[in-house]
Amino acid sequence: MARRSGRRPGNPDTRQAILAAARTAFAERGFDAASIRVIAGAAGVDPALVHHYFGTKEELFRATVDIPVDPADLLPAVLAGDPDRVGERLVRTFLGIWDSPAGAAAVALLRSAVSNEWTARLMREFLVTQVLRRVLDQLDLDPAERPLRGSLVATQVIGLATMRYVIRLEPIASASPETLVAAIGPTVQRYLLGDLA
Amino acid sequence: MARRSGRRPGNPDTRQAILAAARTAFAERGFDAASIRVIAGAAGVDPALVHHYFGTKEELFRATVDIPVDPADLLPAVLAGDPDRVGERLVRTFLGIWDSPAGAAAVALLRSAVSNEWTARLMREFLVTQVLRRVLDQLDLDPAERPLRGSLVATQVIGLATMRYVIRLEPIASASPETLVAAIGPTVQRYLLGDLA
Repeated sequence: MARRSGRRPGNPDTRQAILAAARTAFAERGFDAASIRVIAGAAGVDPALVHHYFGTKEELFRATVDIPVDPADLLPAVLAGDPDRVGERLVRTFLGIWDSPAGAAAVALLRSAVSNEWTARLMREFLVTQVLRRVLDQLDLDPAERPLRGSLVATQVIGLATMRYVIRLEPIASASPETLVAAIGPTVQRYLLGDLA
Repeated sequence: MARRSGRRPGNPDTRQAILAAARTAFAERGFDAASIRVIAGAAGVDPALVHHYFGTKEELFRATVDIPVDPADLLPAVLAGDPDRVGERLVRTFLGIWDSPAGAAAVALLRSAVSNEWTARLMREFLVTQVLRRVLDQLDLDPAERPLRGSLVATQVIGLATMRYVIRLEPIASASPETLVAAIGPTVQRYLLGDLA
């Protein structure tokens, strides 16, 4: 699931300086407003070196939050197919990531976001710009409704992750993915495309 | 909303010793198996003194998790009335607590539970024995389904709390309670009484 970029690891100190500058910029300005140019300037390097080490701005952002999964790789399969089952597919894909070895990094991000305002900002930016926006842009929705729909989905899937992987409340913690897809898929479906009033 | 017990504060060292023993017992054995007798023994005091300082086992438990709200005071109003709207009433009551001054203690418990296994156990016990069991026992449900239904409710309401009060994802963070009741009430309704298969 992790995409190997094949990029050169580069000088460890320079990499760390770029990551630190990127974390600050993404948390303070948000993903959209934080530019590679600003990040490079803060790290004291040329913008070309940032691209050389980390690739695109999306890839740099995923490196700052230590998430080895690229939502851009996974979401097309969620969005393809019967629109009446997109909620089920989203929950199934989400559980597939969190139940995989990549889940440990996701749990670490969640723990950190809950206890640290800085990481909370990065997690918000990650959810909104890397996951929710990509899903919502592909659905036939009133643009004015998208933010509420997206954040409702976040309450349910992050709550699922919190209870299954962090608090480990039974029987959610050991339920089969398909039990959870059947129970929670319709909730996500309604939040994305159903009647909320 | 907080119930004043009118009990004597007592010797601060003794109180702290009882609270520490109670936290350990509730986290290690669970609420049901942790007895006042065992807690008193671990604290080196007479069981009557535990009751004198803290009241019932439920009251002692709430003191250990620092929650000033007694679910037993609030749940009867949630459970009374039209069963088709119990989900809405539960979300409305939940938001009423978290939006009140008592919410700060709830947010602190949530933050702590996510970063600390000890507090996670206490939070699980609190959710199951003080909230979910009381709700589920009053509904006309197959007993075998109760644990899954209760823990599904927990995923949604704890996810709502995490996003609204901790991560502060917009527009959930500043949405009106009634917007959230309309959107999330039907989810909780389905988890409690609807079709999950």
